[in-house]
Amino acid sequence: MAGNMRNLGFVLKSRPTRETPAGVHNFEMIERSVADPADGQVLVRQIFMSLDPYMRGRMNDGKSYAQPQKLGEIMGGGAVGEVIASRNERFKAGDKVLGSGGWQQFALSDGRDLRKLPAGRLPIEAYLGPAGMPGITAWYGTNKIIGPKPGETFVVSAATGAVGTVVGQLAKLAGARVVGIAGGSDKCRFAEQEMGLDVCVDHRAADFEARFNAAVPDGVDGLFENVGGDPFRLAMRRINPFSRIALCGLVASGYDGTPTALEDMRMVLNARCRIEGFIVSDHMPLWPQAISELSEHILAGRIKWRTSVAEGIEAAPAAFFAMLKGGNFGKQLVRLG
Amino acid sequence: MAGNMRNLGFVLKSRPTRETPAGVHNFEMIERSVADPADGQVLVRQIFMSLDPYMRGRMNDGKSYAQPQKLGEIMGGGAVGEVIASRNERFKAGDKVLGSGGWQQFALSDGRDLRKLPAGRLPIEAYLGPAGMPGITAWYGTNKIIGPKPGETFVVSAATGAVGTVVGQLAKLAGARVVGIAGGSDKCRFAEQEMGLDVCVDHRAADFEARFNAAVPDGVDGLFENVGGDPFRLAMRRINPFSRIALCGLVASGYDGTPTALEDMRMVLNARCRIEGFIVSDHMPLWPQAISELSEHILAGRIKWRTSVAEGIEAAPAAFFAMLKGGNFGKQLVRLG
Repeated sequence: MAGNMRNLGFVLKSRPTRETPAGVHNFEMIERSVADPADGQVLVRQIFMSLDPYMRGRMNDGKSYAQPQKLGEIMGGGAVGEVIASRNERFKAGDKVLGSGGWQQFALSDGRDLRKLPAGRLPIEAYLGPAGMPGITAWYGTNKIIGPKPGETFVVSAATGAVGTVVGQLAKLAGARVVGIAGGSDKCRFAEQEMGLDVCVDHRAADFEARFNAAVPDGVDGLFENVGGDPFRLAMRRINPFSRIALCGLVASGYDGTPTALEDMRMVLNARCRIEGFIVSDHMPLWPQAISELSEHILAGRIKWRTSVAEGIEAAPAAFFAMLKGGNFGKQLVRLG
Repeated sequence: MAGNMRNLGFVLKSRPTRETPAGVHNFEMIERSVADPADGQVLVRQIFMSLDPYMRGRMNDGKSYAQPQKLGEIMGGGAVGEVIASRNERFKAGDKVLGSGGWQQFALSDGRDLRKLPAGRLPIEAYLGPAGMPGITAWYGTNKIIGPKPGETFVVSAATGAVGTVVGQLAKLAGARVVGIAGGSDKCRFAEQEMGLDVCVDHRAADFEARFNAAVPDGVDGLFENVGGDPFRLAMRRINPFSRIALCGLVASGYDGTPTALEDMRMVLNARCRIEGFIVSDHMPLWPQAISELSEHILAGRIKWRTSVAEGIEAAPAAFFAMLKGGNFGKQLVRLG
């Protein structure tokens, strides 16, 4: 039956180079027929696929925390969908699942990467966003690395991104004064009015540095860093004694080879600052606790979230690069079915 | 009785500037008569005074972890000595004490900064070195921040300094492969043959970078950083996943305003590295445990140590600046009596 259906997807065709920076030209759309599941396999019709900044790192061949994406193979990534055929006893047709089928419409799996989603409580795309990997990333960095305390000043960059949205609201729930950094007045308005941040500073403003400094009159106790570049440098210049920095991403700079430096280690020494780089997949034993807590917050309206949805598999590459430039507003998804 | 005795000491006369860098000219010797203790006071004849890198930071007026030294007052610092007169019920003449009398021969104290030293087990100067603040600094950074594990590669800079001497031996006791960095073949020989480090690399060697890289073929899991500058940069380029960096000092660069940068935060993210600046005086509740463990190691010969001793109070400023340039070999002291 499946053999009559077309499966459109994208493979990584080439890697970015210094001469030819990353772009949609690195991807190639391919069309295959959908295979019937073999013994033990599950066929998933993917409904939403996730676009995440870490994928940019996987386009490179070099050293990154993520394994390089293999050329000529379907670009990897998370997706939620519905089981349409199963020869695996753990799954049956109709099950909603979170998997890692990547940039394609249909995915075959041996079941090991699939997790059945609880019925009905949250929209399934939440498991790619605030109740999924980005939300768990936010939860780990905020609660396990930084540990915001009432009255402290907490800064989060990319404050309305998939991770930042959850970070800022978790820090507010912990009682901190939260300063967001985001690009554009729409995002800053959302951060202040919907997410409840105390201030959100627009990094596109000509007087960003002055605005940022005015927003942290008592210095910075916690920093959840998603971006790197100028916001990181400015925040580090204002760190307080015993500050904690969770280093989650460096989207603005590093993926294309521009390093984000830490200007002066003496600031770190004088402040007795702790800086931790982290990757949420190193902490799988904590995922169930994180998902449970995040789901409760979302259902209770304590964590609000947004999605940017691109329509159709064809839109994936352009939506991905737009996201890396901040074109998304909340969790970036592609709707496949 | 005391009034007839001379007390020679040094006050900080001026602060370093960009035009006139730090030097012995910043200190002035003064002579006072020794005052009799008032009610509640203790008069200490100081036997050894300590010279420590943090004192360089106190010469500046700017932001440092240490409070700026006040101009015109006796330069502060640790010292060990003997009570020669007491009007404080906690102390009596003949008691050996650790105190903070600073750069002078005699010190009056209200007793709050004094700690009676146990009789006889260790030479009293050990309480300014491996069983004192430098040793506790080593203990905290090595055991509480880095936590070296068997088989890991552990790097310590200023490996034969007062702190580094203890760091390297504690890391060996924990089962790590320990690579020291020190200046000159005498120090490196001591580190390898007496301290038992696996390798000690001479940072004065023309091919230091190549030698260092050859010494860490499996990368760096733990780094106890006392120096900053090139050794720090080279070590950071080799950090392994889940590496831990204890940032204790930046002698080689920062005190005179030359920043030590961390070249690329992406290294920290990719390695999921943790960097912690620390100051041992923030952790006073742990001092008794540290002193007890260190004393046992020293008595059992598991921690060997050396001192560089300058003779007489007059020698203090020159010995201090020589130490900042690595002229010392082990704990730098001034013998006062």
